[in-house]
Amino acid sequence: MTGRLTIALDAMGGDNAPQIIVKGANIARQRYPQAEFLFFGREGEVRPLLDGMAKLRQVSSLVHTDDVVKSDDRPSTAIRNGRQSSMRLSINAVADGRAEAVVSAGNTGALMGMAKFVLKTLPGIDRPAIASYFPTLKGETVMLDLGANLQCDAQNLVDFAVMGTACARTVLGHLNPSFGLLNVGSEDIKGHEYLHEASAILRRAQIPGQFVGFVEGDDIAKGTVDVVVTDGFTGNVALKTAEGTAKLVNEYVRRSFRSSLLAGFGYLLARSALGKVRQRIDPRRYNGAMFIGLNGIVVKSHGGTDAMGFANAIGVAIDMVKHGFIDQIRAEAALVSRAEPSSRAAAV
Amino acid sequence: MTGRLTIALDAMGGDNAPQIIVKGANIARQRYPQAEFLFFGREGEVRPLLDGMAKLRQVSSLVHTDDVVKSDDRPSTAIRNGRQSSMRLSINAVADGRAEAVVSAGNTGALMGMAKFVLKTLPGIDRPAIASYFPTLKGETVMLDLGANLQCDAQNLVDFAVMGTACARTVLGHLNPSFGLLNVGSEDIKGHEYLHEASAILRRAQIPGQFVGFVEGDDIAKGTVDVVVTDGFTGNVALKTAEGTAKLVNEYVRRSFRSSLLAGFGYLLARSALGKVRQRIDPRRYNGAMFIGLNGIVVKSHGGTDAMGFANAIGVAIDMVKHGFIDQIRAEAALVSRAEPSSRAAAV
Repeated sequence: MTGRLTIALDAMGGDNAPQIIVKGANIARQRYPQAEFLFFGREGEVRPLLDGMAKLRQVSSLVHTDDVVKSDDRPSTAIRNGRQSSMRLSINAVADGRAEAVVSAGNTGALMGMAKFVLKTLPGIDRPAIASYFPTLKGETVMLDLGANLQCDAQNLVDFAVMGTACARTVLGHLNPSFGLLNVGSEDIKGHEYLHEASAILRRAQIPGQFVGFVEGDDIAKGTVDVVVTDGFTGNVALKTAEGTAKLVNEYVRRSFRSSLLAGFGYLLARSALGKVRQRIDPRRYNGAMFIGLNGIVVKSHGGTDAMGFANAIGVAIDMVKHGFIDQIRAEAALVSRAEPSSRAAAV
Repeated sequence: MTGRLTIALDAMGGDNAPQIIVKGANIARQRYPQAEFLFFGREGEVRPLLDGMAKLRQVSSLVHTDDVVKSDDRPSTAIRNGRQSSMRLSINAVADGRAEAVVSAGNTGALMGMAKFVLKTLPGIDRPAIASYFPTLKGETVMLDLGANLQCDAQNLVDFAVMGTACARTVLGHLNPSFGLLNVGSEDIKGHEYLHEASAILRRAQIPGQFVGFVEGDDIAKGTVDVVVTDGFTGNVALKTAEGTAKLVNEYVRRSFRSSLLAGFGYLLARSALGKVRQRIDPRRYNGAMFIGLNGIVVKSHGGTDAMGFANAIGVAIDMVKHGFIDQIRAEAALVSRAEPSSRAAAV
């Protein structure tokens, strides 16, 4: 895609809105010259920020609304009472075709609830999922679901496999992605019953890619597969456990350099190389969770991120638009639905 | 405890048995002068190893058996057909009072199944659990269950909290341990229904310690609580995800030192400090998962560990014996059973 593309931004979502939203858009503008931005939020707060960034202002529009979804609003409350919220209006912009994608750093549950309500799911997909990239020894891996669906059945996991492989193919560029189901052992006898059902369906299904069967927690960082498929509860715990562990080891390394004068000199020499490690495991680098299975592109930024992190979330949305992500998933969901009519019917 | 204590060892369990079992015992002998060892396994393989370690031989006995539990035996098969196996005989030694604890690096499911069959659970505990220590920013945290119970109800989690806090108190020495339930958010509205039930019971129950409510995956490495309580599926995935991530970051650091000559010099200066980091996150250091809730002390070593790792698993067993672990759990399980008669009855 070489033409312009418009990203709708919930200017009021997240801990440091609207400052980091506007600053993040300004960073993204430099990286993606074809991008335009459609901000939704309080004019009195957003306009002064835009006025301070002349180049951003040239490619931006602002739609005023006073209403904001609160971080502790339940999804049902947000859908019912937040019709004029910055979050809702920015999702509407995608539904109306005024924007190609929406990015918000606001309340995750409300964003998913509203996005599902407004955009609907793609044909053949029961439940949307949250996906993100992880750094691995081999490069990057997509994992899903990260929290949209705490309880899943076999068919949900099969849908996630379809959506996850489409992610890996379009955005990561793995033409024939490998994928596996997260379990407590790679042996066939282990784990929940629905994992065995999902495995049986995936072995028969015609999902483009290689199904390797069960993988375990340590396979995520090893990069054993391009796509790790799991339920939203397990995926969320694994994501946060990985983030916490990366910080812990990084902190151990930092402390070790302070443990002696010699180590301190060593740090001075290795500082720039170690900076690259920190960059590589920086959660901001992987900011931007993809809500997939919806009839529209929705990206959730971490609520506590900074402008750099928010710019990365915008980058994820732009990548998905550029690679025709929605059409890919649509095509593949139809393929699998045809392959598994009986199982699909049973799951409904 | 100042007297002698005897550890039963399944000499044939694990990838590198009996070599690493005997070598591991020899390392443990130096660390724990009061320990004696009762080996079970093939005399033709074990005796020559013992003969090569005179000091170990002086504090060891060997009971010959040809039979070995295979790594892919189902627990039911192992219980039925493995009555003369090295694993079973070493568990029997604890039941008979010939040993204070048993350590095996063999098949986890078979070990748990046999241990439950032979030793039985403690009064008031329905299901035993697998627990281990994790390194954290603040020290060490106990997490359970790590895979014995893939599906759990509220009462199981309450039992795990009782057992986990007893671990923290006896072996880690936290007199008033804090504990939390692993969930996908700390807010009260999030997560599975049985987590909310367990939380309600724990708020009322008289477990000695501080219940902090829900914790998330990143709280494990932060050390937010002394005891993290979860179901065996989630715990197993979190454990392995943390291990995999620690290795990944360590590998990034290693590669960064090779990225330039300057960084290489830095490494030379900081080598000893960085060695301590590697030591600190070395999985061998945390080897030795505790099977708790049983009427006897059973420790499972990783099957692929080396002699140093196996010695650490023996150390875990000795710590549990020394600290009167079984009596602690017994006392507290009775306490909670009295506090929650109706819920206990409902769960049965």
